[in-house]
Amino acid sequence: MKLSQKIQEMQLSPIRKFVPYADAAVAAGKKVYRLNLGQPDIATPKAFFDAVRNFDQNVLAYANSQGEATLIEALQNYYKRIGIDFKKSDILVTNGGSEAINMLMTAMLDNDDEVIMAEPFYTNYKTFVGQAGGKVVAIPTTAEDGYQYAVREKIEGVITDKTKAICIINPGNPTGKVLTQEEMQLIVDIALKHDLWIIADEVYREFTYDGKEMATFGSFKEAEQNVVIVDSVSKRFSACGARIGSIASKNEELMSNLMKLAQARLCCPTIDMIGSAALYNLEPEYFDDIKKEYEHRRNVSVEALKEIEGIKFGVPEGAFYITAQLPVDNAEDFLMFLLTEFDVNGETVMFAPAGGFFGTPGVGQSDMRIAYVLKAEDMKAGINIIKEGIKAYNAR
Amino acid sequence: MKLSQKIQEMQLSPIRKFVPYADAAVAAGKKVYRLNLGQPDIATPKAFFDAVRNFDQNVLAYANSQGEATLIEALQNYYKRIGIDFKKSDILVTNGGSEAINMLMTAMLDNDDEVIMAEPFYTNYKTFVGQAGGKVVAIPTTAEDGYQYAVREKIEGVITDKTKAICIINPGNPTGKVLTQEEMQLIVDIALKHDLWIIADEVYREFTYDGKEMATFGSFKEAEQNVVIVDSVSKRFSACGARIGSIASKNEELMSNLMKLAQARLCCPTIDMIGSAALYNLEPEYFDDIKKEYEHRRNVSVEALKEIEGIKFGVPEGAFYITAQLPVDNAEDFLMFLLTEFDVNGETVMFAPAGGFFGTPGVGQSDMRIAYVLKAEDMKAGINIIKEGIKAYNAR
Repeated sequence: MKLSQKIQEMQLSPIRKFVPYADAAVAAGKKVYRLNLGQPDIATPKAFFDAVRNFDQNVLAYANSQGEATLIEALQNYYKRIGIDFKKSDILVTNGGSEAINMLMTAMLDNDDEVIMAEPFYTNYKTFVGQAGGKVVAIPTTAEDGYQYAVREKIEGVITDKTKAICIINPGNPTGKVLTQEEMQLIVDIALKHDLWIIADEVYREFTYDGKEMATFGSFKEAEQNVVIVDSVSKRFSACGARIGSIASKNEELMSNLMKLAQARLCCPTIDMIGSAALYNLEPEYFDDIKKEYEHRRNVSVEALKEIEGIKFGVPEGAFYITAQLPVDNAEDFLMFLLTEFDVNGETVMFAPAGGFFGTPGVGQSDMRIAYVLKAEDMKAGINIIKEGIKAYNAR
Repeated sequence: MKLSQKIQEMQLSPIRKFVPYADAAVAAGKKVYRLNLGQPDIATPKAFFDAVRNFDQNVLAYANSQGEATLIEALQNYYKRIGIDFKKSDILVTNGGSEAINMLMTAMLDNDDEVIMAEPFYTNYKTFVGQAGGKVVAIPTTAEDGYQYAVREKIEGVITDKTKAICIINPGNPTGKVLTQEEMQLIVDIALKHDLWIIADEVYREFTYDGKEMATFGSFKEAEQNVVIVDSVSKRFSACGARIGSIASKNEELMSNLMKLAQARLCCPTIDMIGSAALYNLEPEYFDDIKKEYEHRRNVSVEALKEIEGIKFGVPEGAFYITAQLPVDNAEDFLMFLLTEFDVNGETVMFAPAGGFFGTPGVGQSDMRIAYVLKAEDMKAGINIIKEGIKAYNAR
């Protein structure tokens, strides 16, 4: 029996494939700071658990394929607060932002079609592009150029007759780049000119720092047929295990075609949708403290990273990731060293080797991504282990 | 912006696309018996809700991509009881049986590859085959021939060099066909001879009637590298809204490649996996009453259907569906008539028009699938409305 070419060409997630080694380190009695995964240690709002515990039907039935009515309504209200007026039929609830991307790639790509993404990109997207038979075309950016990809020549330079969509995570994962209004306008203009979809993954919308305000791609009226917004409760409400995301677009043809995929997989988990409706119904003030906390964690993490000699990274303006080039020959080897041979007083650390976040061959082999999702002192401790680990690794 | 060819070639689910009309009938004050969907009215075991309510972590975190350890262990024990010894790494938890099929098609099919299925087939499978770029190749069966597809000439007659897998739902959806040991052996022999995957969807494993015993494809040692078992808590435990399924196989290359897809979508919903572990830990006696109840519902439904003049159907041996050819010109038109123009004392009925369950052009246009998931008197009432509706529809 043969496996398909396409699955053989995919990769294990660089964010998750080292988990067994981290688990082994824990089993061996070590403490591991897990900076690899965007899994915040911030409590999920009680409203979620209350809604779940109050579920009182005796049959846990299939939900509507489009999503629970209460959640769709809560999403409409949420979008209204940020200035976008979505009809019910403009919204589709998905199994996390991941399924949203999977569905969108299926809806937009045939074999060898292309999607443009800034590099480094969120690596799991590549798997979904590959599942749809398509290709990621990367716009290379670096810490030195401020992870700047919203430049006309850069984007138009990679557009071909196979290009179907520009996929933008804003604020960015894994760089923390936040687009200005002008940069967004440029992307909108290019998409209109070349007839491209804009997939706007705005799951970190609330997390911008230094007083920066962020617009949503949903606010560009002239591009409302091109724009598709992806959202999720995972990061926004620290509810990663709920697996509830969404797609929102005013393009009726897109939304009605997506229903084919939605109906085939029947529905999202019923009680998680009910819990997620309660999350979206929280007062917007909920985000004030959370944002302050992430900004503090970012500041502490940036200061700690600066202690590492030879490191290169850009200071993130939003989301909760930092991509950094380490003064090591190979980030995967270094991580294996940290997990299997190294500790500081019985503690070690896990990051995501960022090679898989790059499309350009050979680039990113010394890079890591960390998520500042743990409390400040844990971030400090984890980054210090990386610092000490680099010395030991390079001295072997 | 263009949509992909593949999504345009997909269809809305014939099981779900008439839901808006049923909802409109309800809004207009009618009662609608919903026989379209395999959504049992049997209570979900309390063990599920207890486990969910007892979840006491304050962060609803991502789970392991492979699945919660407690659920994988419960699945191992469940399989042990039916005679299959699966290692932990042989099992992957999925978002319902649907995601299992989606992943398997991605893992097995490249463009234009073929999967063999008995016709009528579970229509949603076709969407996942199409998403992977493949084609469903149907083995036509009819009520008259007892929905018999396990015949060497029938199967070998459709095998080509593009055939990658035989996909078998046993007990069958939508026919209720249950394979004998000899029929299963034949399929195993053919798969071994032609080097094919056997996708064994056994989600209705416990629901066989008339004292029939059913084997699992997992019991054929000689084919353990070919066999992949798909399961789900949806029907087995009347927990459709949990969206928890699984893939189990001793083929290590398959399972390790599937982890690429599993990691890309991060994980299944955490609390539903914890609830589902409690379901799989129920005593096997749980199924005794359930099975008796479904057998009763089947008997009542079959008797009621026999009252319809000109109907053709086979008596199901398992699962909880009946596919029947109605004495109407077009089942979709007839359903629209039932939902929008007809009632018996303010009550009407919904079934799934079965045209989409057939691959052979033109076949199945007068067929419906019903699920005997409602209590016996509701099945009787619903089928009586179909009977009266046929008279009125044909008399127009």
